[in-house]
Amino acid sequence: MPVPQPNLYPDFNIVRLSHVEFAVTDLAASRAFYVDTIGLQVTDETSETIYLRAMEERGHHCIVLKKADAAGADHLGFKLFDEGDLERAEVFFAKKGLPVEWVERPYQSRTLRTSDPHGIPLEFYVTMDRLPPIHQRYELYHGARPLRIDHFNCFSPSVDDSVAFYNEMGFRVTEYTEDEETGRLWAAWTHRKGGVHDIAFTNGLGPRLHHTAFWVPSPLNIIDLLDVMSTTGYLKNIERGPGRHGISNAFFLYVRDPDGHRIEFYSSDYQTVDPDLEPIKWDLKDPQRQTLWGAPAPRSWFEEGSLFTGVAGQEPELKAQPIIAP
Amino acid sequence: MPVPQPNLYPDFNIVRLSHVEFAVTDLAASRAFYVDTIGLQVTDETSETIYLRAMEERGHHCIVLKKADAAGADHLGFKLFDEGDLERAEVFFAKKGLPVEWVERPYQSRTLRTSDPHGIPLEFYVTMDRLPPIHQRYELYHGARPLRIDHFNCFSPSVDDSVAFYNEMGFRVTEYTEDEETGRLWAAWTHRKGGVHDIAFTNGLGPRLHHTAFWVPSPLNIIDLLDVMSTTGYLKNIERGPGRHGISNAFFLYVRDPDGHRIEFYSSDYQTVDPDLEPIKWDLKDPQRQTLWGAPAPRSWFEEGSLFTGVAGQEPELKAQPIIAP
Amino acid sequence: MPVPQPNLYPDFNIVRLSHVEFAVTDLAASRAFYVDTIGLQVTDETSETIYLRAMEERGHHCIVLKKADAAGADHLGFKLFDEGDLERAEVFFAKKGLPVEWVERPYQSRTLRTSDPHGIPLEFYVTMDRLPPIHQRYELYHGARPLRIDHFNCFSPSVDDSVAFYNEMGFRVTEYTEDEETGRLWAAWTHRKGGVHDIAFTNGLGPRLHHTAFWVPSPLNIIDLLDVMSTTGYLKNIERGPGRHGISNAFFLYVRDPDGHRIEFYSSDYQTVDPDLEPIKWDLKDPQRQTLWGAPAPRSWFEEGSLFTGVAGQEPELKAQPIIAP
Amino acid sequence: MPVPQPNLYPDFNIVRLSHVEFAVTDLAASRAFYVDTIGLQVTDETSETIYLRAMEERGHHCIVLKKADAAGADHLGFKLFDEGDLERAEVFFAKKGLPVEWVERPYQSRTLRTSDPHGIPLEFYVTMDRLPPIHQRYELYHGARPLRIDHFNCFSPSVDDSVAFYNEMGFRVTEYTEDEETGRLWAAWTHRKGGVHDIAFTNGLGPRLHHTAFWVPSPLNIIDLLDVMSTTGYLKNIERGPGRHGISNAFFLYVRDPDGHRIEFYSSDYQTVDPDLEPIKWDLKDPQRQTLWGAPAPRSWFEEGSLFTGVAGQEPELKAQPIIAP
Repeated sequence: MPVPQPNLYPDFNIVRLSHVEFAVTDLAASRAFYVDTIGLQVTDETSETIYLRAMEERGHHCIVLKKADAAGADHLGFKLFDEGDLERAEVFFAKKGLPVEWVERPYQSRTLRTSDPHGIPLEFYVTMDRLPPIHQRYELYHGARPLRIDHFNCFSPSVDDSVAFYNEMGFRVTEYTEDEETGRLWAAWTHRKGGVHDIAFTNGLGPRLHHTAFWVPSPLNIIDLLDVMSTTGYLKNIERGPGRHGISNAFFLYVRDPDGHRIEFYSSDYQTVDPDLEPIKWDLKDPQRQTLWGAPAPRSWFEEGSLFTGVAGQEPELKAQPIIAP
Repeated sequence: MPVPQPNLYPDFNIVRLSHVEFAVTDLAASRAFYVDTIGLQVTDETSETIYLRAMEERGHHCIVLKKADAAGADHLGFKLFDEGDLERAEVFFAKKGLPVEWVERPYQSRTLRTSDPHGIPLEFYVTMDRLPPIHQRYELYHGARPLRIDHFNCFSPSVDDSVAFYNEMGFRVTEYTEDEETGRLWAAWTHRKGGVHDIAFTNGLGPRLHHTAFWVPSPLNIIDLLDVMSTTGYLKNIERGPGRHGISNAFFLYVRDPDGHRIEFYSSDYQTVDPDLEPIKWDLKDPQRQTLWGAPAPRSWFEEGSLFTGVAGQEPELKAQPIIAP
Repeated sequence: MPVPQPNLYPDFNIVRLSHVEFAVTDLAASRAFYVDTIGLQVTDETSETIYLRAMEERGHHCIVLKKADAAGADHLGFKLFDEGDLERAEVFFAKKGLPVEWVERPYQSRTLRTSDPHGIPLEFYVTMDRLPPIHQRYELYHGARPLRIDHFNCFSPSVDDSVAFYNEMGFRVTEYTEDEETGRLWAAWTHRKGGVHDIAFTNGLGPRLHHTAFWVPSPLNIIDLLDVMSTTGYLKNIERGPGRHGISNAFFLYVRDPDGHRIEFYSSDYQTVDPDLEPIKWDLKDPQRQTLWGAPAPRSWFEEGSLFTGVAGQEPELKAQPIIAP
Repeated sequence: MPVPQPNLYPDFNIVRLSHVEFAVTDLAASRAFYVDTIGLQVTDETSETIYLRAMEERGHHCIVLKKADAAGADHLGFKLFDEGDLERAEVFFAKKGLPVEWVERPYQSRTLRTSDPHGIPLEFYVTMDRLPPIHQRYELYHGARPLRIDHFNCFSPSVDDSVAFYNEMGFRVTEYTEDEETGRLWAAWTHRKGGVHDIAFTNGLGPRLHHTAFWVPSPLNIIDLLDVMSTTGYLKNIERGPGRHGISNAFFLYVRDPDGHRIEFYSSDYQTVDPDLEPIKWDLKDPQRQTLWGAPAPRSWFEEGSLFTGVAGQEPELKAQPIIAP
């Protein structure tokens, strides 16, 4: 199936990805990881919930950590352009027969909860409490110096179907991996905000959240984080990298939080605001697709991910295998 | 005069700044500067004209160098979203009584030439020839490793008026400097593409082009360029920096090309796609506005710029003075 | 006067510069600067004295801060190879008619206090308490990430005489600035440990300590420090830089501590262990000598320094003037 | 066997490692690798031989490439302090019953060829032709920006014996790996010039040259080299890294030249000039020894190396196994 033409005139205007809510089993352990080690800033916390933002963000939260008995991802949040977009979003999802519900979320304007056809819980809102800038409060920077949430990556049981759906919502494909034998999509990167992706999809048991990525200023911040993690008890949490992605051209590192949620640190992809930007095609058998320098990803990276709370995953139809580290 | 509220629903959709055409007096000298030293890539050249692109750009040109008897800036180019936007742009400018003309430009679809109220020549188009990606042809990277054109900065005889006009076209203010005594704008940064600016305006004899900026991957690329320029005959072309801007938070360097056109190298501002992003206000008397580390800019930086071909500049009304290096 | 031939067989073996003791007027303010901002580690402290080391040092201290009524530099410390060297040092200084005295210094083996002919107080020892390595305790790194003390720079009323004396002690000249008109030395860099210098001399009212330098991993650590200092109340303490030195080729920044003691952050000079290394000569009139990128140093940098406690400075004979920022 | 106490008063004074001569089978392929890709500078070349230096070196060569039918390492070169040292070196080796021979080497003063007890061919000289500095000719920098040769690493059939011999020559151990079960040395790093090593030894079939390392300014230069090598046909030549060594704390990358000779790029170890520096002990079973971030080295890295021309290797006695990537 060919990559669909971009839908330049979607029914509603998604500005960007906004936040993710994680169910975590030990709030103190998560705080030590996300705040003390990674470098995110606490914007609110109770005994049950911690809200976090990155250094250049003025919206109230990009990660919400909620104490729970079992780890999971609750939903992916997206910011819409205006209230009209929110109403048109409701119509869009309702017409598809997907669940729509208005929910109250602290620090957000009224929020539409729905899901994509595979079951990923999605929440849309227009405004979130705005906080004073801290991007020049340099004494607060530490860890990986995360500047902003950059993207989500989800396992999908059918990347072709996921891309068709998100394409209809106006997400534009920037790069994709095709299984040469079947001509089907193995993975695709789609964006709204002008970078390589707001959300990507990878073939696998899904829906599951593969990872959440943060933009960092330079590769050296990733090296600093590796030095700190490897000498403060987080050696086993380092999963893959550092390296340069073939796809996106970004410098990357993948780590796992105390519950196994995967976080990527990501630096320097490219600007994609042109509506006529040509998607770049990669072959599933090209090892440089994953890592430009040739190193394959470990098996865990291909197999493990966070289930969405209450959403069962299904096996993918496409059985093609990427190159996996021995 | 307060900063105008952003116009989120402009008459036509400007995607981003696109390119500038410079009149240069010695094409070989300009080539040595832009290609051999700075690191831009030639996409076409004749004895009269050189077209250049930066490393991640797929559009044909971001700088056009034209041989001429006198140095100058011919026009600023902007990319529009679709053909309807181009037609609505024509109407917009015509209604304002500004000149509109359809011109042919090599490698571009039909192009609308007009000007802003102060006389800055503007050219709008929808599509430009797309070239194969070179962002992973790492053997071509050198000089400052320019990734893409980032913004223009223009002297304006009335920044208040310029901001009002560009605001109407949908440019949103991200940061601005106010003269506390008169309450008038001394400078403002306005964007379309989701960074701190596509075009900024600074109080001064105008209209003139103050500088054209290129995004580079990290401060180290700027340091590399300084080392090369200072040891290959370009010592006098280094004008200001390196430093961290207070406004935009970017790491910067300003250099002058062989004709005196000012080029900035710029790294790491922040994402501004939120329609409710709050502009940041700076006081003209705050030295950290210019350089977070306190160093004032030299007099030449405040006084010199490139006239637009055939457009006379006028003195600004606002006589407030910034802090200038002694 | 020509630069003397290196004395490859000095009477005693100085391994490297070791430490400096500063008299400071407000110990808490000094602690906030050196520990919280710069990133040095406290190895001992009382209400009167703070001992500091840098991240890769295993010796007990590289800076000693002593509470005093007036700011000053008490002495420069150097490590000798063995006890025989210490005894031969005593003979060397006594023969010159310079004061020699055995003093007790905490954490050091017996220490010889003496002075150079201009009056710089020098202290020599063989062993200092050794501490466990912390260079891989990455959670402790912050500020400029200082790795080790790198060099001293002193004003001298006669650089020719200083170089002759230190040359006799085995310090080898790596680079020097000559006043072309008189043929006299205006400045010289001399080393023992295999870098560009352990101690340098600059023409001026002296003896005074011009600055003490710390080696940092990369220019980015200096940029980080600038960002922090300029946003945490230390804007006025930034004196010169960042830049690339012509002499030494190092990337540099000069800041002032709360008492005005000047500290340099310094990265990437070159290896000088070859006994036949040729000194590099610079002309006093060459602006790239100071800063490869052409920016002259400010007047304060040429005129201000720390007096050694109880040692009066004398005016230099050589009146030649370097290029000073207007 | 415990690590021997440093011999601070060796019979002769070795200043530093100097150069290596490689037998290569395709001089043009080697030139493309070392000059065009890595960034070393040619100082002389004929149809049979290429001499190379790194950017801050003033001696004539650090690598000599000689056309040959079979790949190999001809000898390791070291610089001595003075002619007396050269004569005392001859006596030292002759007394041990090791071969001594005076040879003529282009661009070097008279040269003593001998070998260590396991058969590593060693060449000692005092002076080499000195060339004008190029460390500020920044237009010449490219590839990994190699600044200077940093160290050799050799497989040894008995690291205990190698360390005892080089210790007697004045090399001081900075770090070492012990096989906990037998108490024998598995690897050791020994220096003369004040860094972590001039030469290291690793348990294995030997003598063989494991790798030759070059100092580069920062981790970013290693990332740049990876980007270039992986996109210009050298993907398969990337063997291990990038990463942070536990031992030495340096940032590293290992690549293979067209004949399989292994080259390391290495940045930021620490200063070791103190004669009382305490060696750091590592356990062979500690994975952070190899890579602080936990990634084990591939099998090829433990097994492959360059034989010295005409010298047969012997199997090591110690059979302990390090952690190898699956």
